[in-house]
Amino acid sequence: MVAGPADPGRGRRYGGRIDLPPDPSETDPTGDEAAVAAAVEAYYAAFEATDLDAMSDLWVHDDTVACTHPGWARLQGWAATSASFFAIFDQSPPLQVFVTDQRVHVAGDVAWVTLDENLLGAGSEPSGTTVATVKVLRRTDAGWRVVVHHGSVVVSRPG
Amino acid sequence: MVAGPADPGRGRRYGGRIDLPPDPSETDPTGDEAAVAAAVEAYYAAFEATDLDAMSDLWVHDDTVACTHPGWARLQGWAATSASFFAIFDQSPPLQVFVTDQRVHVAGDVAWVTLDENLLGAGSEPSGTTVATVKVLRRTDAGWRVVVHHGSVVVSRPG
Repeated sequence: MVAGPADPGRGRRYGGRIDLPPDPSETDPTGDEAAVAAAVEAYYAAFEATDLDAMSDLWVHDDTVACTHPGWARLQGWAATSASFFAIFDQSPPLQVFVTDQRVHVAGDVAWVTLDENLLGAGSEPSGTTVATVKVLRRTDAGWRVVVHHGSVVVSRPG
Repeated sequence: MVAGPADPGRGRRYGGRIDLPPDPSETDPTGDEAAVAAAVEAYYAAFEATDLDAMSDLWVHDDTVACTHPGWARLQGWAATSASFFAIFDQSPPLQVFVTDQRVHVAGDVAWVTLDENLLGAGSEPSGTTVATVKVLRRTDAGWRVVVHHGSVVVSRPG
């Protein structure tokens, strides 16, 4: 979109302030994208801390939940998903996750986020593994909650 | 949900007709779920026919598109995604895809679908491979269109 003379708000951004990041009030007027990004940040904080209660707080708790860990069959429903995090947190050494290329999209009461998880530290996956990931979140009375998580290890990049 | 006496529509289903599938007018009153399922069915028809034009018609055509084929890095945007289907359709023998465990969810103008692709026939993946898949679709003036596709080969099932 090109800022025109009838768009003084956007026009100001081209007047010597081009190096500043976009004003969130322009790019995310509802704050939804920031709220979704905060939920994703909390997800990885819970993951790194192997904090099952904190992770639990970030998910929808019903049978519409779907969770696919790298190489796993899809787990359907919160009970199976919760059990998988219990097992992962119980059995694996803590992992550091460095998130890159995160993109947040919000439409109404649904959001989806794509990102790459770059795993650092000991774990079932070798350090340096990249996991391509998509999440779907729903707006609830308690905030944005994850309803779908799907991650898969990046083996090859198309040549 | 339990059908009560004030719910004759649902109540009827428990009067000797319990073997019938649910009436779509009750479970999908807007027809959205059926329309999303039809888009998914068209997606796999296009995939099996290696029909790039038909596949193209089923996607959003902008840079919000994200497509992750099994083992690949995520492709961002329609141009890269389109090129990937061109390469897959050009280089791989046609595959039959038998879809199982499909679940459609619609919330406003967004839908997400989880399913398993069971690949039959010659291809880069061995026959019998199962690909756990999630798709996000958006409602557009032209119908439901895919904006995210993410598939990953099922290597192990949690024990």
